Amino acid sequence: MRKVGVAATGLAEFTKNEISIESLMLSAIKPIFNNTPNLSQDDVEVVLTSTNANNKYLANIISELSGISPKVAHSVESLCNSGTNCIVSAYAYISSGLADTALVIGAEKTNSPGLVLEWDKSRGQYKHPIYWSSMFTSAHMRKFGTTLEDLAHVGAKNHRNALDNPYAYFERSYSVEEIMQSKSLTENVRLLDCSMPCNGSAAILLAAENVIKKFCEQPVWITGIGQKAISAGFTKNDDLTSMKSTIISASDAYKMSRTTADDIDVAELHDAFSICEIIELEDLGLAPKGEGGSLVKKLYETQDRKINPRGGLIGAGHPLGATGVAQTIEVCQQLQGKAEKRQVDGVKVGLVHNMSAAATSSTILILES
Amino acid sequence: MRKVGVAATGLAEFTKNEISIESLMLSAIKPIFNNTPNLSQDDVEVVLTSTNANNKYLANIISELSGISPKVAHSVESLCNSGTNCIVSAYAYISSGLADTALVIGAEKTNSPGLVLEWDKSRGQYKHPIYWSSMFTSAHMRKFGTTLEDLAHVGAKNHRNALDNPYAYFERSYSVEEIMQSKSLTENVRLLDCSMPCNGSAAILLAAENVIKKFCEQPVWITGIGQKAISAGFTKNDDLTSMKSTIISASDAYKMSRTTADDIDVAELHDAFSICEIIELEDLGLAPKGEGGSLVKKLYETQDRKINPRGGLIGAGHPLGATGVAQTIEVCQQLQGKAEKRQVDGVKVGLVHNMSAAATSSTILILES
Repeated sequence: MRKVGVAATGLAEFTKNEISIESLMLSAIKPIFNNTPNLSQDDVEVVLTSTNANNKYLANIISELSGISPKVAHSVESLCNSGTNCIVSAYAYISSGLADTALVIGAEKTNSPGLVLEWDKSRGQYKHPIYWSSMFTSAHMRKFGTTLEDLAHVGAKNHRNALDNPYAYFERSYSVEEIMQSKSLTENVRLLDCSMPCNGSAAILLAAENVIKKFCEQPVWITGIGQKAISAGFTKNDDLTSMKSTIISASDAYKMSRTTADDIDVAELHDAFSICEIIELEDLGLAPKGEGGSLVKKLYETQDRKINPRGGLIGAGHPLGATGVAQTIEVCQQLQGKAEKRQVDGVKVGLVHNMSAAATSSTILILES
Repeated sequence: MRKVGVAATGLAEFTKNEISIESLMLSAIKPIFNNTPNLSQDDVEVVLTSTNANNKYLANIISELSGISPKVAHSVESLCNSGTNCIVSAYAYISSGLADTALVIGAEKTNSPGLVLEWDKSRGQYKHPIYWSSMFTSAHMRKFGTTLEDLAHVGAKNHRNALDNPYAYFERSYSVEEIMQSKSLTENVRLLDCSMPCNGSAAILLAAENVIKKFCEQPVWITGIGQKAISAGFTKNDDLTSMKSTIISASDAYKMSRTTADDIDVAELHDAFSICEIIELEDLGLAPKGEGGSLVKKLYETQDRKINPRGGLIGAGHPLGATGVAQTIEVCQQLQGKAEKRQVDGVKVGLVHNMSAAATSSTILILES
């Protein structure tokens, strides 16, 4: 397999301002061309769009609006992990030799049709994601003694981190107390335990090792990939205190990259809800099982930015199709030492965790400089 | 690159009966498992769904309903050539080594949101595809003297071929005279010059050369791939008597497979409208430029099934996301000598041509036994 790396990245601000999906995507593509002197439209061989929007032929429309005539153009959808599905698909085109470069653009609007799980009739009244997050929360509290205060530390940490992310949706931080006192949505999920749907876009240019130096002096390599789709309905997860698809994906990604959890210097985790980050820390091997809550508290108290340095989905906002791409961009910037105020020291190996619908499917990427 | 082949195929009947997109997809997956004794659900590592339907998380839902827990599951959309985009994406996963097997399922319902080009504001009143087909028809008639009678021979041939396709939408044939006398939609496009939107589904299992023999004694290999996305709006095509994306894709696919037009024994062409088949014959090098109409007439008169043996989109129906997959299945069956009454003699090399929206994008596959 040819090595595949990230050659350039672009972000658009996460907001609630009314804007079309096309304009969102173009806003994220623009910095890629602006900041990559040797890149011309003719260099782009694959254009993949990642979104839950119902627009058709979007990859072709975005290509035309950007002056690109690629070989391959299509849209990819897999709810909240559309973004990393798109990145892995782009990786496959390049790694297989079908293309040398691929542009992935993820975008979503606030009113995304992917937000509520209308499609899953087996969920009955539990179509809104807060219900599964509440069930995961109950199970973890019962089995491991995780507290509402532990949960609030996820939000407090991620909101604080988001203050140094110029593209984040939230422009203020929230204390542990404010989060605990925010509106109760279920008996254990409060409003500030939830990620915020918003408009947003993120774009990434991947390239094969033999051409990447033309575009980028300091490429970041995708060295590990793990993906698993257990099911659509969340009742197939054996145990509501862990995420089976995440465990399997992590195992595959660590194996492919010949790394272990101990090697991870920085990680973007899919904190759709507070409980997710706690369970993911454990399932990725970044905390012993049952101790995700304690780790989050420690990270908060020591102001350690290792986990979700850009503020996670809770602090930065969650534009579904863009999220996995934005997570990957953050890890790239950390590996390149370009994360400014968010920079974690000595980052050599980074991890992206992106998942959909109660972790019924997960993608893990390992990135290295 | 590892060789990638077709290990199994499945079709559901093309109809107007009310049926859900999920049921359509399952109907095409069922024969794959029924007819492949050594295939279990655990063997399937990638599940890609191809459709213009607005359903979300469909690849995961179909996986769960089929008892499959793949690594990768997502949906692919690129209007009418979603199906071959999906096949090439699956090819890339396997060829790159990320997976050994991939199941592609294309399906569409009659009321597909991909049918009318609402997304392309540049088209003004010309959103319905009959308008671009009418402009292509006018240009070809003017430049090459193609006649309405030539056009009617496309439909007459393809409707006659469809009679031997047990999955076809149409159950009767139409004479050249009937087609010429069918309802006029524009000055040169009649109702029976058009493909018919319908419900339909088609599924294909791809596998790497090192595992394919477990599933299939007589695999068909994908030896050539060409794809090109010129634009979204059709006004970027230089000349309305040819299809630029088809010419470029064909050149790449012939080159990759080291074949030429002379090697093609059977071809599935994207006859969204009669004029398309005529132009495509020329652009693929199967007829000299300007002589597509004469070739169609000759094929009709000699009852030669070489072009669109299953009846094309005009005779078999056009369920958008399924079309490219169904075309590929036909070429596989021809290569395996399993096309029953539709069988063309001595087929060694076959071609699939699938395109979207006035050939603003095209995919060409070359298949060999």
